[in-house]
Amino acid sequence: MLLKDIKQPQDIKHLDIDELYSLAKEIRQKILNTVMETGGHLASSLGAVEIILAMHYCFDCPNDKFVFDVGHQCYAHKLLTGRYEQFDTLRQFGGMAGFPKINESVYDAANTGHSSTSISLACGLSRALWQENSPNLTVSVIGDGALTGGLAYEALNDCINLKKKQIIILNDNSMSISENVGSTAKYLLKLHTSNYYNRIKAKAFNIVRGFRIDNTDPAMRFLYKAKNSVKYFLQGGMPFEQFGIRYFGPIDGHDLEDLINVLEVAKKENESCIIHVVTKKGYGFKEAEDDPAKYHGYSPSKPNSNANSSVSFSDGFGESMKNLASSNNKVYAVTAAMREGTGLLSYSEMFPQRFCDVGIAEGHATTMCAGLALGGYKPYFAVYSSFLQRAYDNLIHDVCLQDLPVTFCIDRAGIVPNDGETHQGIYDVNFMRLIPNMTIIAPKNVEELDAALKWSLDFKHPLAIRYPKGSVKTASPVMPIEIGKWDVIKKSNSPLVLLAAGAVMVEQALMASEMLKEKGIFAEVVNCRFIKPLDNDYLNTLEGKLVFTLEDNQLAGGFGSGVLEYCSDNNIPVKIIRLAINEQFLTHGSTKELLKLTELDAESIADKCEKLFKEFKESNL
Amino acid sequence: MLLKDIKQPQDIKHLDIDELYSLAKEIRQKILNTVMETGGHLASSLGAVEIILAMHYCFDCPNDKFVFDVGHQCYAHKLLTGRYEQFDTLRQFGGMAGFPKINESVYDAANTGHSSTSISLACGLSRALWQENSPNLTVSVIGDGALTGGLAYEALNDCINLKKKQIIILNDNSMSISENVGSTAKYLLKLHTSNYYNRIKAKAFNIVRGFRIDNTDPAMRFLYKAKNSVKYFLQGGMPFEQFGIRYFGPIDGHDLEDLINVLEVAKKENESCIIHVVTKKGYGFKEAEDDPAKYHGYSPSKPNSNANSSVSFSDGFGESMKNLASSNNKVYAVTAAMREGTGLLSYSEMFPQRFCDVGIAEGHATTMCAGLALGGYKPYFAVYSSFLQRAYDNLIHDVCLQDLPVTFCIDRAGIVPNDGETHQGIYDVNFMRLIPNMTIIAPKNVEELDAALKWSLDFKHPLAIRYPKGSVKTASPVMPIEIGKWDVIKKSNSPLVLLAAGAVMVEQALMASEMLKEKGIFAEVVNCRFIKPLDNDYLNTLEGKLVFTLEDNQLAGGFGSGVLEYCSDNNIPVKIIRLAINEQFLTHGSTKELLKLTELDAESIADKCEKLFKEFKESNL
Repeated sequence: MLLKDIKQPQDIKHLDIDELYSLAKEIRQKILNTVMETGGHLASSLGAVEIILAMHYCFDCPNDKFVFDVGHQCYAHKLLTGRYEQFDTLRQFGGMAGFPKINESVYDAANTGHSSTSISLACGLSRALWQENSPNLTVSVIGDGALTGGLAYEALNDCINLKKKQIIILNDNSMSISENVGSTAKYLLKLHTSNYYNRIKAKAFNIVRGFRIDNTDPAMRFLYKAKNSVKYFLQGGMPFEQFGIRYFGPIDGHDLEDLINVLEVAKKENESCIIHVVTKKGYGFKEAEDDPAKYHGYSPSKPNSNANSSVSFSDGFGESMKNLASSNNKVYAVTAAMREGTGLLSYSEMFPQRFCDVGIAEGHATTMCAGLALGGYKPYFAVYSSFLQRAYDNLIHDVCLQDLPVTFCIDRAGIVPNDGETHQGIYDVNFMRLIPNMTIIAPKNVEELDAALKWSLDFKHPLAIRYPKGSVKTASPVMPIEIGKWDVIKKSNSPLVLLAAGAVMVEQALMASEMLKEKGIFAEVVNCRFIKPLDNDYLNTLEGKLVFTLEDNQLAGGFGSGVLEYCSDNNIPVKIIRLAINEQFLTHGSTKELLKLTELDAESIADKCEKLFKEFKESNL
Repeated sequence: MLLKDIKQPQDIKHLDIDELYSLAKEIRQKILNTVMETGGHLASSLGAVEIILAMHYCFDCPNDKFVFDVGHQCYAHKLLTGRYEQFDTLRQFGGMAGFPKINESVYDAANTGHSSTSISLACGLSRALWQENSPNLTVSVIGDGALTGGLAYEALNDCINLKKKQIIILNDNSMSISENVGSTAKYLLKLHTSNYYNRIKAKAFNIVRGFRIDNTDPAMRFLYKAKNSVKYFLQGGMPFEQFGIRYFGPIDGHDLEDLINVLEVAKKENESCIIHVVTKKGYGFKEAEDDPAKYHGYSPSKPNSNANSSVSFSDGFGESMKNLASSNNKVYAVTAAMREGTGLLSYSEMFPQRFCDVGIAEGHATTMCAGLALGGYKPYFAVYSSFLQRAYDNLIHDVCLQDLPVTFCIDRAGIVPNDGETHQGIYDVNFMRLIPNMTIIAPKNVEELDAALKWSLDFKHPLAIRYPKGSVKTASPVMPIEIGKWDVIKKSNSPLVLLAAGAVMVEQALMASEMLKEKGIFAEVVNCRFIKPLDNDYLNTLEGKLVFTLEDNQLAGGFGSGVLEYCSDNNIPVKIIRLAINEQFLTHGSTKELLKLTELDAESIADKCEKLFKEFKESNL
């Protein structure tokens, strides 16, 4: 057993190639065993083991700065940087994060989580290293899927301005999360499947690596240039070289010798380098190799967890969309590399002509939807809440300003389990509420999501429908949807009112009201399904009451603020207590743990209601 | 005089080439005369006259959809589509907009204003046209500067998925607004300055245009293919063709015959096409040709308008930054293609090593700043408010989540004159206030901006400093900056309090208080320079008062909501009237006109104060 003796990356420097291969095997086994227990990003982490081993072998982390794009492939890096003992706590509340965290380890040069940020971060780090005359380098690892994000392109375009080179490892597994799309993907595929080219390249590379290239040697430099010329001739040019970035590859990403050799060459280059490495997602674990999308994010099925479980919002959404598209031939569904995650797989097979996946490119997806709407279509963009942040200007400038009927179907809104800070959907209500022309709906359950989608067909303006990951158990019936009309689920004459926004909050509010009932306290519970516009008629009835607003997003400027604003503007004397997530990025953990942490679980809500209602009654007496 | 007889684009179809050239001359003269009066985007509009003439000559607008990237080059299009009579009202309040507007004309296929959206919009429009089996096409015009935006790349990457081709005219004038930067710019320059290549191309093209090419003719197709092969050989490949997009060019963008010929060829192509057109910014007006940056946005100097005018915020910012960088060698200034506009020109000459312009790429600029900060530097990103929207996820995910000391110097915050809806800086307070770890300052004048910047040096967290276009006359002195401490400019014992956020609002509040004084009403005026965090100590003193909050951004969830939230949460009995921009995109006009329109001018404020203060006193009696 070698792995557990690795306390720091330096400990692998003395290993020979066979030992490195053994270590790779151990790492893979450790990742596999752990993720089967904890869940996690299995396929991508298995695919990047040799890359990470070679990086630590060739470079001097943390003086050299490693930036992992998205970061879900970094498990091997965590295991090699003193986190072996913590590894079993992966993605558990209070345990190790599933992504790089600067606060977790000095070996993590930057937090990542969203796609396509690595080259930008590395541009900044490289500029800082240059300022300091540091001999160290930045090395980033970016997947081919992340290359479809415009941010990566903006950063590549800036590389030529750097006075200190950066090294970029392009980890090409021909996948983003779903299958890859677009011309960048096709281009990369062409590169690494061109036999003709690969044979010549392999020959050139074999010569080179036999020598452990000395870059100052003109002969060696010539060899590389020759190789590039051949490449140009066969391929019609390398876009990367248009960016002033030297291209190496494709390299077998599971061949440690090749990887180490090419990294040593890149280290000595004067220009920024991109090393195109071909890997197999899920490498070393047959099930994951065969179905990498399934094992992209693996969740262990816990006993009984599926008993009585309702349909998930994603699945419900997918079903509703099929019905919608059947009934109306203007319906068009769009995703940004999240066909499976958002529940659109079956829809995409049924309506391939009215579906498109634009790759990891939420900005383009949104503006493209504006174009579809201008052309008379009714686009539905299914997107995770935290990724919609990447399309904010598109939302304001292209959709809302033109008042176009684009519907944003916002999955993973509110608290998102396990992935941590970067994946929480706890900002959308706040950042959308301020935009003119925007309407926001948060249905209480899958049936109400369906009703909202049906209602949206005749709605001629920008619309957001937000819903959480997973499912809730809130029972129907669903009241007919009418703009700005709420649904009083539990009527009461009591002055205590719970205004709950969204499925999870309605569920917790109902549970809280049950807890309160046991203590003889009755509360009205309202499903505030329209977050914008609010139900002004209902708000007008609140005089003299104690009102709790409940929302699973930021407190400042959220749903509760909207209620407060209306009541203040309209001189409605009412005591409003706003419960939400207060000035906090939210760590990883289960939904239950995070609800408790933010005091948005039924019990905390009930406790607060009890305490404040008592005070309220006393002060009113 | 031909131009005024053109009532619709069809009217130019019968013109011969000489008449078209005369028309171009007239259009240019009309643009020149008008912009000299009204101000406007002169250089880019002059440069695109022939392109737009050729488009209308070859295509059938509005059935064919024209999308103008940014849109500031569209004046000729407006003149040819029935807006000759309105043209004198360009950018005037109530008059014709300076950008395409779907609500202004059926010939405008989409609103634009921000950079790099055109190809995305066209992807959507093309998909809609394909669905309808329409024979029509989309034609977009995008500048080389706009190509540095990641959104354009995301859209290019999607073109290969289209079932209906789109035509993209790349208007390459080697400029964005400032000089162009990055490798895309260098690459384009290489293309259109390669003599060797140009000679061969010209020859091939001459043959082709002699024939008015018939694309079904195999010989003609061969000629084009041959041309491309030559190109590959000479250039090492065309990135555009990697996107599955056929490349034509470079073409002289002021040669109408060449333009018409190439558009006719592109019309018949099966694939999406990019037509690389080289133009001269400001063509036909010597002053603008020689200094296109100066004439990018032209403002006529009105008599007396400069009398007694204070230093503009942009100029003040530039001066402060030089002092900052002199005193601290970690200071680093970053811009996204707005070196001149943000006032950084002189800084960039003085500190070239601690300055970078990343091109029109606000997302990258922000994440790159995160990298600089991770590397121990103190980056200042100077950006216009409305363009910061394009970096929203970068702000949340890369800067605030890691709690990094990046300072956003937000110019053109609040109401922006003349450019209209797309350029208003009226969302930033709202969309930043909700982000944890964010601090927001709005100084009252240039001196306080300087003080805030000096103060920022020791501040270790994300910080935004927002200030308007132009200047204000609010007098110093500046009270020392302390986090969350406001500056009571006008002390009063009256229960009437004006809480003003930002320079323009402070200026209006002071003027309003003078007007009120004349009526015997006294008001306390507070410069609420910290928008987040608020001055809680001050707020705690407000019991029993009538408080007006003033802000030049959206009402929902803005500064006033913050005041309301604090007072509600802390049971401070106070009447709060929130004045802001309410659910409105704001049209073009002067700052004065727009302040009046939104009732945020001193007079409207004073009127409201007078009326409500009277009611307030009566109800309190």
